[in-house]
Amino acid sequence: MFPKEKGVSISAAMPSELERSMESLIMVFHRYAEKDGDGNTLSKKELKELMKTELASFLKSQKDPAAIDTIMKDLDQNGDGKVSFEEFVSLVVGLSIACEQIYQLHTQKVAAKK
Amino acid sequence: MFPKEKGVSISAAMPSELERSMESLIMVFHRYAEKDGDGNTLSKKELKELMKTELASFLKSQKDPAAIDTIMKDLDQNGDGKVSFEEFVSLVVGLSIACEQIYQLHTQKVAAKK
Repeated sequence: MFPKEKGVSISAAMPSELERSMESLIMVFHRYAEKDGDGNTLSKKELKELMKTELASFLKSQKDPAAIDTIMKDLDQNGDGKVSFEEFVSLVVGLSIACEQIYQLHTQKVAAKK
Repeated sequence: MFPKEKGVSISAAMPSELERSMESLIMVFHRYAEKDGDGNTLSKKELKELMKTELASFLKSQKDPAAIDTIMKDLDQNGDGKVSFEEFVSLVVGLSIACEQIYQLHTQKVAAKK
């Protein structure tokens, strides 16, 4: 009756690559959000720490020394001086979309060389 | 002059947890997008395969047998019958935000018990 039961229970126990990525987004956010005060939002200081550790390459590519302030302002849509998970995710989405476009260009170049 | 050079080069070689998550989003999308035809978008069939493998637990929780059709319609914002990376990411964002809200409720409950 449940020929795939074993397979299903394995898949429930072992998260997929996509599920692991989503879990990481949540865990990384909370790792920094819980550093001081409200554990459900990032203060500017916490966002700074997160970006310096987790997005070091991206941050180095930003020539503007006020990049973090600009990013904080952009992310903090409701202007409460804190970055919620929803607001943080929009940064991750923007960076992922930019990286994916570079990936597409790269694969096109590789294909053109063949 | 570059006291942190070694540290910096290690961090450049070893992606952070957040960078690995973003890479996974791109790689998972392309793994399925490249199955047939256009490698930069998911057809309905490819989206179905991706969701069955990568989001099995979520899919099982959907009682509506037409869930994939509804999701495809929701994601395909420009109505071309294909899901681009940008459109796919909005699904991941929605699921991540929902999961994060559950995580917040869970940590609140745990804190209340202490």
